Amino acid sequence: MKLPNQTEGLRFRLVLKAGFALGPGKADLLQAIRDTGSLAAAGSRLSMSPKRVWTLVREMNTAFQAALVETEKGGTGGGGSARLTDTGRLVLDRYRAMESEANAVIAAGVAELRGLMRE
Amino acid sequence: MKLPNQTEGLRFRLVLKAGFALGPGKADLLQAIRDTGSLAAAGSRLSMSPKRVWTLVREMNTAFQAALVETEKGGTGGGGSARLTDTGRLVLDRYRAMESEANAVIAAGVAELRGLMRE
Repeated sequence: MKLPNQTEGLRFRLVLKAGFALGPGKADLLQAIRDTGSLAAAGSRLSMSPKRVWTLVREMNTAFQAALVETEKGGTGGGGSARLTDTGRLVLDRYRAMESEANAVIAAGVAELRGLMRE
Repeated sequence: MKLPNQTEGLRFRLVLKAGFALGPGKADLLQAIRDTGSLAAAGSRLSMSPKRVWTLVREMNTAFQAALVETEKGGTGGGGSARLTDTGRLVLDRYRAMESEANAVIAAGVAELRGLMRE
């Protein structure tokens, strides 16, 4: 389990519709699935339980018109291979681009606030 | 208690140092204190318990070199008047400015992702 407030920087969560947000957890999961080709390996890389991985994947796959993640064996999230669909790659790329654009535009403000903090 | 994923848009959390983040909860609290002049009224406006109000105020006041919130009677958060210090106003203004700049820079990406979602 990662502690969200331990890593400095912007935590960037987009509420795309009521009840569905795209934030660092889902983005990191999409990226880990893209990199590892497996839900089990992605979960292990992120210290995320198989149940949590599967919950997030299902949430993403049902929120969009097209699935973001394709699995070879459906249903359990435990084994088999997994990969991002074209839509999955697009969503991940757009999220990362927005995150980095937002980070760039706030960099000076962040530095100013950090300068006001106690050591 | 507000449900964070019910309001569409960017949830914007800055981890300014390990263990301290400035996000929508603290920003809304600073704003409500500025507007109402009281911790009790601010908490009531945000449906936040007095204990939670006081915890967030204390966290902010100790994280920065100068306090962000001044209270007339210290310690309980229940009564008396409260106001933002110069540093408090500066932090709130900077947070809101960064939030709106970040929202502007990602607007096209958000619209694109929303267009991919199921109704």
